Amino acid sequence: MSGFWAARAVVGGRVLEGVAFSADAAGRVDSWRAGVRAPAAALAFGLITPGFANAHSHAFHRRLRGRTHSLGGDFWRWREAMYAAAEDLEPDTYHELATGLFRELAGAGYTAVGEFHYLRHCRDGSPYPSNAMELALAEAARDAGIRLTLLDACYLTGGIGQELTGAQRRFGDGDAAGWLDRWGRLRDALAAPADTFGLVRLGAAAHSVRAVPPAGLARIAAELPAGVPIHTHLSETPQENRDCVRAYGLTPTQVMAEAGLLGPRLAAVHATHLTPDDIVALGASGATVVACPTTEADLGDGIGPARALADAGARLAIGSDQQVVIDPFRELASLEGHQRLALRRRGVFSPPELWRAGQADGYRCLGFDPPLELGGPCDFIELDPASPRTAGSQPDQIIFAAGPADVLRTVVGGRPVGRTP
Amino acid sequence: MSGFWAARAVVGGRVLEGVAFSADAAGRVDSWRAGVRAPAAALAFGLITPGFANAHSHAFHRRLRGRTHSLGGDFWRWREAMYAAAEDLEPDTYHELATGLFRELAGAGYTAVGEFHYLRHCRDGSPYPSNAMELALAEAARDAGIRLTLLDACYLTGGIGQELTGAQRRFGDGDAAGWLDRWGRLRDALAAPADTFGLVRLGAAAHSVRAVPPAGLARIAAELPAGVPIHTHLSETPQENRDCVRAYGLTPTQVMAEAGLLGPRLAAVHATHLTPDDIVALGASGATVVACPTTEADLGDGIGPARALADAGARLAIGSDQQVVIDPFRELASLEGHQRLALRRRGVFSPPELWRAGQADGYRCLGFDPPLELGGPCDFIELDPASPRTAGSQPDQIIFAAGPADVLRTVVGGRPVGRTP
Repeated sequence: MSGFWAARAVVGGRVLEGVAFSADAAGRVDSWRAGVRAPAAALAFGLITPGFANAHSHAFHRRLRGRTHSLGGDFWRWREAMYAAAEDLEPDTYHELATGLFRELAGAGYTAVGEFHYLRHCRDGSPYPSNAMELALAEAARDAGIRLTLLDACYLTGGIGQELTGAQRRFGDGDAAGWLDRWGRLRDALAAPADTFGLVRLGAAAHSVRAVPPAGLARIAAELPAGVPIHTHLSETPQENRDCVRAYGLTPTQVMAEAGLLGPRLAAVHATHLTPDDIVALGASGATVVACPTTEADLGDGIGPARALADAGARLAIGSDQQVVIDPFRELASLEGHQRLALRRRGVFSPPELWRAGQADGYRCLGFDPPLELGGPCDFIELDPASPRTAGSQPDQIIFAAGPADVLRTVVGGRPVGRTP
Repeated sequence: MSGFWAARAVVGGRVLEGVAFSADAAGRVDSWRAGVRAPAAALAFGLITPGFANAHSHAFHRRLRGRTHSLGGDFWRWREAMYAAAEDLEPDTYHELATGLFRELAGAGYTAVGEFHYLRHCRDGSPYPSNAMELALAEAARDAGIRLTLLDACYLTGGIGQELTGAQRRFGDGDAAGWLDRWGRLRDALAAPADTFGLVRLGAAAHSVRAVPPAGLARIAAELPAGVPIHTHLSETPQENRDCVRAYGLTPTQVMAEAGLLGPRLAAVHATHLTPDDIVALGASGATVVACPTTEADLGDGIGPARALADAGARLAIGSDQQVVIDPFRELASLEGHQRLALRRRGVFSPPELWRAGQADGYRCLGFDPPLELGGPCDFIELDPASPRTAGSQPDQIIFAAGPADVLRTVVGGRPVGRTP
């Protein structure tokens, strides 16, 4: 049992003074008291808060940072550069790249990551032996000390009705049955290693309506075991919507609904271009919407209806997506900032709503209990409340002031992890 | 004479290898060669770039960071909190606050600041002896080692046709003649100290059409000495525009034009809500538009027509304004990112255009020659090209990847300045 004490904690957006807590051998919080002095044997901290969840990550996009800004164009042109970045990665280089990224995440205050993964096969489309690319990611998370939900993504078509071509051939599994079959074997393989400290779990994804036909989505909805989180890209661009309506007479949200995928275990990434009916349907289903504000600005996607989605009942989470920057504070401030720009008022989301999106609801959509709560993962970060950036800020509003350099220590499952080197 | 060498420099958005240069006693670049090896006696750097200009700063707003996000409302409600922050500052506390901010600026990569200043009188509206508040700012810049243009602002009314009330009484000078008179005396006072190393210069501002009547603007345009930069807040909110049109039958830009203020020495801050004619007039005049993207998002101002202004001929610069964050990289990435969100395409501004806005054109609108060019101020920063954030980025696109923690050294006028403590 590890004992901890913090002078001050921001949990659920509320400020608590003097919290003493401990973690069991599985890394879960097994005792929690507020308003107490430091016990003699406890590891002492200053200002702490639960770790942030990066609910949407593509590790290999890290290769694109600072290299695509002369291209012009939009999402689709950027996608060509993204495919080029996927071309030559092998299990060893993928492991190296992901380890560096996951260390950057942990150093910046993310304690859990949902890796939306489809770069899985050899360059000719044939499978690697022994799930080599997936195990490279699991190993990278273990090496970096970060909690990982591997969102293994079904990716069958290069666009609605289009074959996989070029780098996309690395993504495919033939059909939904092939993906489900491989997913089951992957689950067995990931369960095998005894040394993961429970850090790695397997989730699922259906890439998008562009990459999985409706029949495949329905089969996944029916056959994926209950309780497994499922993520999907949803209505990131107007063109995706037009293609979908033309092919199926339905919006992407309606396709997901028809397939039986709308519900609390669904995480819809982006959800930028929605109809009013889409917003009602997503919200009523209890789905989570994963906003990726820095990516959405970088790609010129537009500003989504995040406030309306929350009002309709959706939970919110954040993701670093294409890794344009790694900064949970900036994602949350940008989520709020973009809503302010669109709606022309301040305080669109309250600070507690933003903390919840970054922490508890991000964890939930990755299949984890909320961090730093009794029974949940003992995942937290210590923040510097008196740096040049944070000095003077109220602790419960520090997400608007802090940056990655203000993360002094990161603890995952009760174990302190190294700072980004 | 100080000799410097850098392995690589990004100047005007172009990458140069092996630059050797030196500064004269006045802190100006007096020699410059590219493509050379390190001279034996030079102070050697890795990757350098000219320092950034923070062309719009209100030092006392630093007090509001992380303290206004539960307020809701919009710009006008935030303004009440801002006035409260101005209530109790005296020359000594103002100096302390500004020194901390200016150090934060220098540590984050800003080597010059335009302080838009109107918090000048005692709380009852009577003047301090000896320009105490202005000298507190000059002293703070000297203590922090940053270049300062003190944009002493004329602020006469609390709104169109409204008396100054509450904290606003600290801002006033009666009428434009009173402001011009005090401005002239302030110029003499600032010229007196011999120990400023040429770091501090006096500029001017007319706060806005809200705070200076048209006759006052015309008098300032006519009587302010030639060559002195003049800044103004312009069309930050739709309400400002409505009030102006109702009172004068003219947009704020048209009021400035009628007063004779449009021209290359004008810097219009925000310029968010413009008519097509306003855009043409501002652009054709050769004015600079100072975008403050993080502040504009924070206040819910909306996204201005920055691309259209540049196409019409305006120069662009950036400002930290209400100090919500101090990060020139983020201001530039957000300037571009907000345009991408509004226009739904990437590469709205090219990387060289963004570098120019942050550096050369920011300096110009503060009355300084472009930094790190022959004859210009020897002001530059060294960046870490291999941090967790910047690794892999092309040097000429590093503004999209870097953060304040990647600023390794800051040099102003050929003198290295301390990192933010």
